[in-house]
Amino acid sequence: MEKKDIKVGLVGLGTVGLGVAKVLSSNSDLIAKRVTPISLKRIVDKNVTVAKEKAVEIGYSADIVTDDFNDILNDAEISVVVELIGGIHPAYEFIKSALLAGKNVVTANKDLMASLGGELLHIAEEQGRDLMFEASVAGGIPILHALKECLSGNKIQKIMGIVNGTTNFILTQMSQTGADFASCLAEAQELGYAEADPTNDIEGFDAARKVAILASIAFNSRVIDTDVYVEGISNIQDIDIKYARELGYGIKMLGIAKEDNGEIEARVHPALIPLQHPLASVNDSFNAVFVTGDAVGDTMFYGRGAGELPTASAVVGDIMESARNICQEVTGRIACTCFEDKRIKHMDETISKYYIRLAVMDDPGVLSRITKAFGDNKVSLSSVMQKGHNNKQGDAAQIVLITHTVLEANVQKALKEAQALDCLYEIKSLIRVEKR
Amino acid sequence: MEKKDIKVGLVGLGTVGLGVAKVLSSNSDLIAKRVTPISLKRIVDKNVTVAKEKAVEIGYSADIVTDDFNDILNDAEISVVVELIGGIHPAYEFIKSALLAGKNVVTANKDLMASLGGELLHIAEEQGRDLMFEASVAGGIPILHALKECLSGNKIQKIMGIVNGTTNFILTQMSQTGADFASCLAEAQELGYAEADPTNDIEGFDAARKVAILASIAFNSRVIDTDVYVEGISNIQDIDIKYARELGYGIKMLGIAKEDNGEIEARVHPALIPLQHPLASVNDSFNAVFVTGDAVGDTMFYGRGAGELPTASAVVGDIMESARNICQEVTGRIACTCFEDKRIKHMDETISKYYIRLAVMDDPGVLSRITKAFGDNKVSLSSVMQKGHNNKQGDAAQIVLITHTVLEANVQKALKEAQALDCLYEIKSLIRVEKR
Repeated sequence: MEKKDIKVGLVGLGTVGLGVAKVLSSNSDLIAKRVTPISLKRIVDKNVTVAKEKAVEIGYSADIVTDDFNDILNDAEISVVVELIGGIHPAYEFIKSALLAGKNVVTANKDLMASLGGELLHIAEEQGRDLMFEASVAGGIPILHALKECLSGNKIQKIMGIVNGTTNFILTQMSQTGADFASCLAEAQELGYAEADPTNDIEGFDAARKVAILASIAFNSRVIDTDVYVEGISNIQDIDIKYARELGYGIKMLGIAKEDNGEIEARVHPALIPLQHPLASVNDSFNAVFVTGDAVGDTMFYGRGAGELPTASAVVGDIMESARNICQEVTGRIACTCFEDKRIKHMDETISKYYIRLAVMDDPGVLSRITKAFGDNKVSLSSVMQKGHNNKQGDAAQIVLITHTVLEANVQKALKEAQALDCLYEIKSLIRVEKR
Repeated sequence: MEKKDIKVGLVGLGTVGLGVAKVLSSNSDLIAKRVTPISLKRIVDKNVTVAKEKAVEIGYSADIVTDDFNDILNDAEISVVVELIGGIHPAYEFIKSALLAGKNVVTANKDLMASLGGELLHIAEEQGRDLMFEASVAGGIPILHALKECLSGNKIQKIMGIVNGTTNFILTQMSQTGADFASCLAEAQELGYAEADPTNDIEGFDAARKVAILASIAFNSRVIDTDVYVEGISNIQDIDIKYARELGYGIKMLGIAKEDNGEIEARVHPALIPLQHPLASVNDSFNAVFVTGDAVGDTMFYGRGAGELPTASAVVGDIMESARNICQEVTGRIACTCFEDKRIKHMDETISKYYIRLAVMDDPGVLSRITKAFGDNKVSLSSVMQKGHNNKQGDAAQIVLITHTVLEANVQKALKEAQALDCLYEIKSLIRVEKR
């Protein structure tokens, strides 16, 4: 392979951008030997003063920092543009114009790829250029490459991922300390694992974007963020974590994508998972993606899902791959992989097991009236446990039910019927149970 | 990309060969859409009669089976040769002649790649052809691709792998049932997890080949199988597994490769590993490779390390990648990655923590005499435990020592000195302790 000097333009010198600049500099010898010399020629950041300081601190000249994206766009020497500003606008415009100008693009932008990714990938394809986004899902874990290339001989059947570090940290804390959601969230915020407004993470929107990207690649059919069913973890009670553990389960926030009979299921919600499942011991802010393929069986990819250097690892890996493609004149080597158009199931049509905790009247006969509501709706139960029976007469008792694998629609109907009974005070929890 | 019909010649219709034939057939539509049409044109097997039966059973014509490798070599239409016979000869001759004939090669042959891989990779490079061997390490887990491409922005610091399913199965059984090595080995043999002559697996030779391949790629410097220090698991006692657990450790057979100051360490031996380490919960015949890079931090890749379809998944992934390279006229896209020549450390020069179990005279003063031998040799101890003190006077007591991180040479010297003491009956166990 004839080596060329590859020049990179970086947009956004935030946490990840700084990480990328550091890795390109500290490992430049290794990168040159492994692929080809790659150097950072230009950094665009809206806050030029701060960016100049940061650039100089890690050994770059202040001169390469600018606030004008055109300084990258119009520089014919720059062949790889790295977009790390996040969000939809102006990232979309930057990437689109870079591709149209014949540049290759590397991005970590999950918001953008999970919404307008299809359009951008088609532009890249038409231009014969790379648009790579490994860092957009699970940080440093090379899961997108694994799905696109190494595992591509497989019909992928299911993906289950812990793809949000904030919620995994909170659930790990709740599980290990017995503390409640609010105090674990506060701790996560203190430690910088959760943002001041944590909605995106704890309500599952961040994970939904990653699930959309994973599902699109795994099933070769476009899934966007709003296609993904989302349920957050803010209703998870410490008592549910305790009961789950008694039953041999942990509670994890999972992103799930399945293909069944040519239809796709994509959902994000907390779930009970057996304690001996490899995902159950993925703790703290670590991420992991569990992939089941028809040939490979079960595999898991584990690592840091965020952070300066782990995410930079994925970005630099993409830059190096694009650089190799440039040297070998095969940019756009792997085009958009969505060549199918599969229907996405409504949540009502999905099947699962369910953990259900109810507050009921502590009276004989209550159990049979409630379980009848489930039976009438074809929801068969695999276990029924009464908790807290030692209350005073008339007090609320807790019933924990585990269903067999049943249709979501039927569970919802059963709960509606049960709710109409005077002996059911409250549906405390409804959490899906995943096996594999 | 202009798609071409890619014709494959398969050598060896054993377990993995059959899996590859199955996957190429069952997922042919998906493979054609994801990359390009790929079909199996010729199968070479020395037992033609059986191979024809097997081929027909999975839907191929008996006519494609032959016992003459020249039928592949001289077929200009066949551009990818898949070698799955294992062993050094004639696999070496087949691969070499295929490359020299301008064909691309995919192999799962760890014995060959860990010994003569360097030579074959150089021939491939000169010929501008692919020589891919993802399946040679950890079956379906795409670890070689991850190291060569996705993680290539990282200086890899350490690899720790459970890369032999047989020994992992045996140690898991010993740990879960409390049974001894011999009976767990017998069970593994009954279940087909261990061969009639299990030497290669239980003495670590199989793992050593995988470590050699992993180290060569991770550190860009050739390491061959005989460079790897090897210690088997046949001396692991059930009592050590019990004591290790009391101390918060599991015992796993690990393949370890490290780079430190431009020098390489490569070794295979049982080791204590903290129970909360992700490798500790990799059980049964599963494999996992834990990789630490300077940017990505800790990552782990988990899955089936052997078996018909998991290994076929890796082989077919390689075939598809080579097929893409053929269509894009970039075969040999990633050449041999060993561009350095690093020294490999002698085992004496390595450092580690150690778990040491000694049978000693049950007498006051013994402990101080023995620990003095360690102190005199700069081996500092982090814990000393006396076990089985309730014996009769003069009986052997057990002492379990855990050292701080110390030089292997010093531990060996200390043990030699201690062994000369009349109060030390026997060195029962010496097992390294790994942290990260």
